[in-house]
Amino acid sequence: MKLSKLLGMRFKETPADCQITSHILMVRGGYIKNTGSGIYSLFMPAKRIMQKIEAIIREEMDGIGGQEVMLPVAMPASLWKESGRFDSVSNELLRFKDRHGSDMVLGMTHEEAVVHLARDAAPSYTNYPFMLYQIQTKFRDEARPRAGLIRVREFTMKDAYSFHLTQEDLESYYEECYKAYERIFRRCGLKDVCVVKSDSGMMGGKVSHEFMQLTEVGEDTLIICSACDFRSNMEVAECITTPSLRATPPEEGNLADELLEMVHTPGTKTIDSLCEFLNITPQETCKAVMYRTNETGELVVVFIRGDLEVNETKLRNYLQAEVHPDMDNQDDVAYGYCGPVNFTAKAKLVFDRSVKGLSGLVTGANKEGYHYKGFSADRDVPNVEYHDFAKTFEGAVCPVCKKHSITIKRGIEVGNIFQLGTKYTEAMGMTYLDANSKQQHPIMGCYGIGVERTAASVCEAYHDDYGPIWPISIAPWQVHICAIRSDDAQVAATAKALYEGLQNAGIEVLIDDRDVRPGFMFSDADLLGIPVRATVSPKTCERSVVEVSARDKTLKEDVAVDSAIEYIAELVRKKMSELS
Amino acid sequence: MKLSKLLGMRFKETPADCQITSHILMVRGGYIKNTGSGIYSLFMPAKRIMQKIEAIIREEMDGIGGQEVMLPVAMPASLWKESGRFDSVSNELLRFKDRHGSDMVLGMTHEEAVVHLARDAAPSYTNYPFMLYQIQTKFRDEARPRAGLIRVREFTMKDAYSFHLTQEDLESYYEECYKAYERIFRRCGLKDVCVVKSDSGMMGGKVSHEFMQLTEVGEDTLIICSACDFRSNMEVAECITTPSLRATPPEEGNLADELLEMVHTPGTKTIDSLCEFLNITPQETCKAVMYRTNETGELVVVFIRGDLEVNETKLRNYLQAEVHPDMDNQDDVAYGYCGPVNFTAKAKLVFDRSVKGLSGLVTGANKEGYHYKGFSADRDVPNVEYHDFAKTFEGAVCPVCKKHSITIKRGIEVGNIFQLGTKYTEAMGMTYLDANSKQQHPIMGCYGIGVERTAASVCEAYHDDYGPIWPISIAPWQVHICAIRSDDAQVAATAKALYEGLQNAGIEVLIDDRDVRPGFMFSDADLLGIPVRATVSPKTCERSVVEVSARDKTLKEDVAVDSAIEYIAELVRKKMSELS
Repeated sequence: MKLSKLLGMRFKETPADCQITSHILMVRGGYIKNTGSGIYSLFMPAKRIMQKIEAIIREEMDGIGGQEVMLPVAMPASLWKESGRFDSVSNELLRFKDRHGSDMVLGMTHEEAVVHLARDAAPSYTNYPFMLYQIQTKFRDEARPRAGLIRVREFTMKDAYSFHLTQEDLESYYEECYKAYERIFRRCGLKDVCVVKSDSGMMGGKVSHEFMQLTEVGEDTLIICSACDFRSNMEVAECITTPSLRATPPEEGNLADELLEMVHTPGTKTIDSLCEFLNITPQETCKAVMYRTNETGELVVVFIRGDLEVNETKLRNYLQAEVHPDMDNQDDVAYGYCGPVNFTAKAKLVFDRSVKGLSGLVTGANKEGYHYKGFSADRDVPNVEYHDFAKTFEGAVCPVCKKHSITIKRGIEVGNIFQLGTKYTEAMGMTYLDANSKQQHPIMGCYGIGVERTAASVCEAYHDDYGPIWPISIAPWQVHICAIRSDDAQVAATAKALYEGLQNAGIEVLIDDRDVRPGFMFSDADLLGIPVRATVSPKTCERSVVEVSARDKTLKEDVAVDSAIEYIAELVRKKMSELS
Repeated sequence: MKLSKLLGMRFKETPADCQITSHILMVRGGYIKNTGSGIYSLFMPAKRIMQKIEAIIREEMDGIGGQEVMLPVAMPASLWKESGRFDSVSNELLRFKDRHGSDMVLGMTHEEAVVHLARDAAPSYTNYPFMLYQIQTKFRDEARPRAGLIRVREFTMKDAYSFHLTQEDLESYYEECYKAYERIFRRCGLKDVCVVKSDSGMMGGKVSHEFMQLTEVGEDTLIICSACDFRSNMEVAECITTPSLRATPPEEGNLADELLEMVHTPGTKTIDSLCEFLNITPQETCKAVMYRTNETGELVVVFIRGDLEVNETKLRNYLQAEVHPDMDNQDDVAYGYCGPVNFTAKAKLVFDRSVKGLSGLVTGANKEGYHYKGFSADRDVPNVEYHDFAKTFEGAVCPVCKKHSITIKRGIEVGNIFQLGTKYTEAMGMTYLDANSKQQHPIMGCYGIGVERTAASVCEAYHDDYGPIWPISIAPWQVHICAIRSDDAQVAATAKALYEGLQNAGIEVLIDDRDVRPGFMFSDADLLGIPVRATVSPKTCERSVVEVSARDKTLKEDVAVDSAIEYIAELVRKKMSELS
C-alpha cells in the first residue's frame, strides 16, 4: 500500500472530547472517525487491525471445535419474548418496529438467536457437545458511550455458544475456552490480561469470568490479592472486615450498661460532617444508604458501617431486583439522620455484615438533627439477618488466604465467559432425547470477545507519546518504508525494489512515497505504529544501506541494501513467531 | 470437519413455503434457517460459502486499489437528512429512535456514511482518486421478502465508493470495476451473468448497470436483443412500436371524415372484454391507466395503446415522483371507460408515444358503459406531448439495431454499478481544492454486490434434483470423504489417513464418519454439494482403492489408495485453477 493513497488524516493536536490515549491516538492517526454517539467508522488501518484480531480469534475458536455461523443483527422481538429478556433487559436493548409494525430488536448478544438456530438441529444426545460462534456487529444502546472504541454502541463481537449434555462437560469445555482466550490475548500482544470472577448480570447462570486488561483507564474495578491467586471483579468480591474500634469503651460491666443516648447533631447529614462534629472515625458509625427498586419504587435501606460503600451488584442480586439510589425527599424519612432503631417509615431494611456484633456506634436517630450514641447491633436490632453488601477495599481481608492483602486495580473487559446452565434452553424449549429416550434440556456456555475494545486495549498498553506501537500480529502492516526524497532517482529505485521484494516475500508493506519533509514522514510513521521501519534516503543510498529500526526503539541498524529484504523478512518472521 | 459434529439437519421433503430451488435446497441441506420475515441465520456450510465469495470479492477490490473500511450499520438519521434521502426514500429505509429519542436509520446503502468518512480526509486534488469499500450487514425493510436468500431484509453486501476529479476518470474507473465484477462472478462460477443498463432509482446519477444472473426464477425482467449487443433492464428499455392496424379503414377521403362515434359498450371495463364485445384487437384501442402520486395523491392518467403495459419506472422518472396504481373509486371518474376526449376530472394526463399518429382507435368516452370509436390522436387531442412510458415486449424493435429482435429474459441482480456524479458530495458539502486552489466537489461512483444473493444464484445455476453442485471456488469444503461402514477397522484407518493426508496437503475436507447407511450418506453428500467425493468402503479397501467422483458426475474413478492423496490434491488444484 502506498501512503500517498491511504485515506485518513494524521495530525498532532489532541482532538477535542478525547480523554484517553487510545482514543486520542486512533483519531490523530487516521484510524477512526466518529459517525454518531458511540458509533465509529474505521479507515483502512483500523479495519486491518480488526481483521487480524478476528483471524486470531477465528483460528483459536476453530481450534477448539467451533463452527462459525451467522446470526441476524436485527431480530424479531418474539425471540427475546420467549426468553423473557424482551421485558427484563433495560433499554440498552434497542427495540424498534418494522414497516409492518412488528416488534424487532437489534442484537446486543445472541443467546436467543443461537438457541433458535440450534433447537431443531440437535435432537439426539449423539449431536452433543457442539459450539457455534460468529464474529458480527452488535448494537448496545449505551446511555453514555465514551472513551473512543472502549465503550461504544455499535461494535464487533465474537460471540460463541456451547451446548452440552452434562455440567461436567460444560465445565471442561469452559476450561478449554478459558485457555483459548488466554492464547488469543497473548497472540494479540496483550500481556496484562487478568481473569477475574464476575457477576453474570443479564446473562444468567452462576459461574462467569471476565478477561481484564489491566490499565489505569479501565472502567472496571478489579480486586486482586497480593498474597494469593484470588482475583475478582469488585462487583462480586466478598468484603471481609475486621471489627471496628468501639467508639467509647464501656467504663465497666457489659455492653448493656452502655445505653443508647440521643444527641443533638445539627447539620450532620453526611458521615464526614458527623465524624467531625463528634470527633470520631467513620468506622465508629452505622450509616443508612437509601435505594429504591426500579420497578415498584419501594424504599430499600442498607445499614452498613460508616467507612464502607454499598456494592449495588450484591444488593441487586440479593433483592433480585434492579435498584437506584433514592433521590426522593420523602416526608416521613429523616434523610441524613436515619438509623436502624425506631425506623418507622415503610421500607425494606437490610443489614450489611460489617455491623454485626459491633457496639458503641453512632447511628441516626430517625429525627432531623439527632443521632444515637452507644448503638449495639446485637442488643438494639436483634434477630436481623446480615448479608454481604459492602464493596471491598484496599487492604481488606482476602476471602481465600485471609490476609490483609486485597489490592484494587482498574481494567478493561476484553472478554467474558459464562456458564449459562439451562436458562435459555428451558425458556425456549430446546430439548434432546438422552440415551434412555428421555427429553432433556442441553446445558449452555457462552463466550464473548469485543474486537474493537481489544484493539483499543492494545493501544492503551503499547504506545508512546508519538503514537501506538502495534504488536506485529495485529499491526495494520508489518513493515513501513520511509522513502525520504523520493524525487531522488536512487532513493526511488531502492525503495521500490525493497517494497516489491518484501511483498514478494509475503510481507505486508506500507510505503511512504510522498514528497514530504523527513520529520513529517516520521511523525506519520509513529502514528501508524508499524513495528518494523525501513528508511531509504540519499544518505543511506550513498552508503548502500537501508536503515532498519523498530517502532519500539529496540533496534536501529544499517543493513546492506543487497541483504535488506532477507534481513527484514527474517525480522518479521521472528517477531511474528514470538506472538504465534 | 467431521460431519457427525456438523450442526444442521438435512432432509428429503420440500419444506413448506419454499418455492424456488435455491431456497428449497439450502433449507433441505442444513445451510440456512429462517429467523424472521426476510431474515436468515446461516449454518456453517453457508457461512463458509459466504466467506469464500467475500474473499474473492476482497481480492478483486484490492486488485483495483480499493481500501477496505468499515461504516456503521446503525447511523444517525442526520446523515440521511443531509443528503435528502431521509425524506425521499420510501419505508424500505428502516427508521427508528434510540433511547434518547434521536432519529436513527439502519444502513441499506452507505453513500452518506462514506462521504461523512471521506469528506475531511481528502482536502486536496492530490488525494484523488480513491476507492473505499466494505463487506457488511445491510438492512432493507422489504415489504414482501421472498425466495429464500434472493429477496431478504437483512443481507451482506460489498459496497464500494470511488471518488474522482473528473468525469473521465470516473468513467475509466467504472470500466475497471465493471471488469473486476466480471472476474468476481466468473470466479464464483457464474457463467450466465449478463450486464444490462439500468435505472439509477434512489441512488441518483445517470449511468448505471446491473449484473444479472439469467434464470427463470429471477425477479428482474431483462431486455436482450437477439441481433445485436443491446441489453437493458426492462425498467429503462426504450419501447419502439410499429403502427397499429386501423380499426375500421375509412371508406373514402381523409381521417377527419371518420367521426368520433359514441357506442354503448356495457360491462367492458377491461380491454379484453371491450375487444371481445367489439370484435377488435387490443392494438386497435387507446386505454387509460390510472395512477396516483404517493406524496400528494394527485391522479395521473397514462393514455397508451391497449396492447401495451405502462413501465412505472419510466413514469416515475418522468414525473420525478413516486406513484402507485390508483385503487380509489373516485366519483367523477368513469373507471373502465376513461379516454383522452372530454376527460374532465382533475388529473395529470400523459400520453405514451405508441398512440401518436394513430387513428380509428376505440377509447373510453368518460361515461359509464360507453366508448368512442374513430378516435384519432392527432385530430382529437392535438398539441399533447408524447413520451415513452411503455414496457417493451418480445419481438419489439431494438432501439440500437432497429430489428424486431427484442427478447425477454428473467434474471437475478447480483451486482450493480452507478456513476453517481456529485449528488452526495454536493448535498453533504464534500470539497477539495483543485490545482488552482478552487473548491470543487469530487465525482463519485458506487458499486454493490449482494453476497447471499450471489450464493443463491450459484445454487440456482448449478444443482440437480439431489442438491446444489457448488463450484469448487466457493464450495463449503473441497473434498467430501464418505467412510462407509466406518466401524470396519480398515475403512476407518484408510479414511482417517486420507482425511489427514489431504488436510496436510492444504485441502479442505469434510469427512462423513457416521455409522449410517450408504444411501443416507450419499444423499447427505449430494445436499452438501461438495465438488470432489472420495468414497471408502469395505469393497474399495478390498481392492486397495478409493473411489473418487465428482458431484457434477463428470468423473468416477478408482484410484489406488497409495496415490489417492496426490490424485485428489491435484484434482482440487486443477479445478481451483479453472476458476482463478
